[in-house]
Amino acid sequence: MELTTEVFERLLKEKQYKAIKSIFDTMNPVDTAALLPQFQEREMVLLFRLIPKENAAMVFTYLDADEEQILIEAFTDNELKTIMDDMFIDDTVDVIEEMPANVVERILAASGEKRKAINEILNYPEDSAGSIMTLEYVALSPDMTIGEAIQRIKARGIHRETVNTCYVVERHKLVGIITAKDLLTEDDDCLVKDVMEDNVITVNTHTDKEEVAQMFNKYDFLALPVVDNENMLVGIVTVDDAIDVIQEEAEEDFQKMAAITPSDRPYLKTPVWRIWASRIPWLLLLMISATFTGIIISKFENALAAVPILTAFIPMLMDTGGNSGAQASVTVIRGLSLGEVTVKDIFKVMWKEFRVSIMCGATLAVASFLKVIVVDRILMHNTDVSMLIALTVGTTLCVTIICAKFIGCSLPILAKKLKFDPAVMASPFITTIVDALSLLLYFSIAMAIVPQLSAG
Amino acid sequence: MELTTEVFERLLKEKQYKAIKSIFDTMNPVDTAALLPQFQEREMVLLFRLIPKENAAMVFTYLDADEEQILIEAFTDNELKTIMDDMFIDDTVDVIEEMPANVVERILAASGEKRKAINEILNYPEDSAGSIMTLEYVALSPDMTIGEAIQRIKARGIHRETVNTCYVVERHKLVGIITAKDLLTEDDDCLVKDVMEDNVITVNTHTDKEEVAQMFNKYDFLALPVVDNENMLVGIVTVDDAIDVIQEEAEEDFQKMAAITPSDRPYLKTPVWRIWASRIPWLLLLMISATFTGIIISKFENALAAVPILTAFIPMLMDTGGNSGAQASVTVIRGLSLGEVTVKDIFKVMWKEFRVSIMCGATLAVASFLKVIVVDRILMHNTDVSMLIALTVGTTLCVTIICAKFIGCSLPILAKKLKFDPAVMASPFITTIVDALSLLLYFSIAMAIVPQLSAG
Repeated sequence: MELTTEVFERLLKEKQYKAIKSIFDTMNPVDTAALLPQFQEREMVLLFRLIPKENAAMVFTYLDADEEQILIEAFTDNELKTIMDDMFIDDTVDVIEEMPANVVERILAASGEKRKAINEILNYPEDSAGSIMTLEYVALSPDMTIGEAIQRIKARGIHRETVNTCYVVERHKLVGIITAKDLLTEDDDCLVKDVMEDNVITVNTHTDKEEVAQMFNKYDFLALPVVDNENMLVGIVTVDDAIDVIQEEAEEDFQKMAAITPSDRPYLKTPVWRIWASRIPWLLLLMISATFTGIIISKFENALAAVPILTAFIPMLMDTGGNSGAQASVTVIRGLSLGEVTVKDIFKVMWKEFRVSIMCGATLAVASFLKVIVVDRILMHNTDVSMLIALTVGTTLCVTIICAKFIGCSLPILAKKLKFDPAVMASPFITTIVDALSLLLYFSIAMAIVPQLSAG
Repeated sequence: MELTTEVFERLLKEKQYKAIKSIFDTMNPVDTAALLPQFQEREMVLLFRLIPKENAAMVFTYLDADEEQILIEAFTDNELKTIMDDMFIDDTVDVIEEMPANVVERILAASGEKRKAINEILNYPEDSAGSIMTLEYVALSPDMTIGEAIQRIKARGIHRETVNTCYVVERHKLVGIITAKDLLTEDDDCLVKDVMEDNVITVNTHTDKEEVAQMFNKYDFLALPVVDNENMLVGIVTVDDAIDVIQEEAEEDFQKMAAITPSDRPYLKTPVWRIWASRIPWLLLLMISATFTGIIISKFENALAAVPILTAFIPMLMDTGGNSGAQASVTVIRGLSLGEVTVKDIFKVMWKEFRVSIMCGATLAVASFLKVIVVDRILMHNTDVSMLIALTVGTTLCVTIICAKFIGCSLPILAKKLKFDPAVMASPFITTIVDALSLLLYFSIAMAIVPQLSAG
């Protein structure tokens, strides 16, 4: 795709519409959809009308909500109806969910006989399998021959989203699946029921969509049937939608871990005030909760006045504690997201992290002791740095790391247990808790070890 | 799948092998593969031999490397050969990549005629499309009719990984693709070349596998043809492998952002010393680099001695700066990973983050000013907290946030530009830099504003 926007601008200016049509004919709908937003509204609508009819609905599906709305508002009722006829129901539902009420009304009015099916999907809870499924699957009967099944697909399959897996249904109940590979490689007079796979893995309409996506990842499916409580087949989820869910889920975890309210808008297209709105609540909350660290330091003001060099190690202790906690929490949060770790593993995880934290703590304690002596005392000639200060720093670091890993690994699992989102228990929160803890530990240990303080 | 391990233990003890066979026959290979590692080596090998022949290779594919090695070592040469015959070449390559040299030799010896193809894939660079492709695709000729094509698939398609997309090849060059849907819905006497899609999107054998995975995500493909520099078709990448790459890539980013050396072992199966080894280098590095913050504080020891309350706000300033920087860096790093942001967007990103940072900085400056006055001065009766201290804290916070967002958004893009991995430029590193900067700003601003200090 080395066709630049300039080429189309030039062709538009010269009114070479036939040429544009021919170019669009060779382009993948996804690329066409990426091109359109580069143009002003008027040109965009004009260009969209030059897309070959058989690709128009697909291009429309891949546009962002803003452009979709512009186009719908420019469409005649007839144009809208043509697009809606060619779109898959699950894609239509995706569009509807992003549109204002008046546009939704026009879309539903133009959807004709699909309207009932669209309303049905819209009624499923937002994060359920029902909300991401499509109704356009191929259903076969178990007593058909392969040859009859192929005839049925020839008659009806063209408008289905996929024929790669077909569903064998008896009185609306799902009894098996048969793949395109089976249909193409088995003899025409075999019976569907003899060829089909009858141990079918299904999901319920109310299964959480993230769980559905994990099943695709686990079983390498291309499509997964969705059934209701009576095992009646109501729809299928296809792998492309599952990939979107996997990707969305990971992005949400990234955002939550960075203390950002999740949003699925592409960054460069998000207005500045929206970015601000997704970031500021967490910054405020975390800033306010840092009051505790301030209080702790105020309480130990006299200690800091007596041995001022203690202040110099506060940032290092806080950061290392925060990093250690974040390592544990991110590992556990992702393990929970991917289903590798479950709530009942909590003691296994804690025991593992305990051993890791002892090893990390000991290593860093020795390293920081040596660093304080060699760098701060010897190389930088800072005579305030005594052996006992180095010992205080090393000991605090070791204990802080053990506590940080403990908190980091257990809080996300507890959150999950209490039905909160583990990802919001991520680094920023754990850092705030670990900060307060590391300061308390630091001052307590200093009071015990450093003679100027323990005397008082 | 509510069949518990206990059921199988019981059946094994009672030597009810036929029953086990029947149960395995109804189970999905992925579930069988999840069950086996629950058993001791001897039982596991015994159970594996009870898996129906047609599923054995599939179950083997889904096992972890440890179990695969145990089985291979227990297999007779004949058993190994049967499994290798039934496995897809790309899966065999995955197994080989995890095995010690002596096991690899046995596998290659048992691979028969596939050996050449396996070696070919093994020779592609580790992260290239070539390394994840499979050679088992269906190739058709453009001058065949659909009927002839179906006959060809009946004859050869059974052992191909997918027939959902077939590849139309003329003198080894890829000229088009045709889907199972086309084959099943078009008339038998149509020509393949009239039905096929001839604008085919391909990748090169050396294309980075992450780029390949992004194309699956973008275009919703089920398979993508891999060609060499002469447009000769050499293999295909299937969507299940692309999902694995997407997932791996996200996990690696998570690990790097949490200052962990990436590993693709499941957490609960990773030995403690390995977890330690993946975490300790970063903790050490970050601890050492915190020396700078220590030096800065030592330099301003006199200021802290004169106005000790200044120390109380250090943790809050550092944390808020770190959080602000992390918000920007994680957003940009993921944008780069997903291809939403590119290196040439650097000025767009910086301008956007600049505006966001002004808004965030101003909000937090006002909020922290009020918090310091209301909470620290009035509620907690801390008379050391003057208006000028509150002003110092608020101003420092605002400037720190602006700097943190600037560093957070620009460092990952610079890293990408210099061909480093943007994800290692993530929160821990940026936190360390922002910490030092925020302290410098804090002391400089305090020196300028607070009378006790500016006088000196």
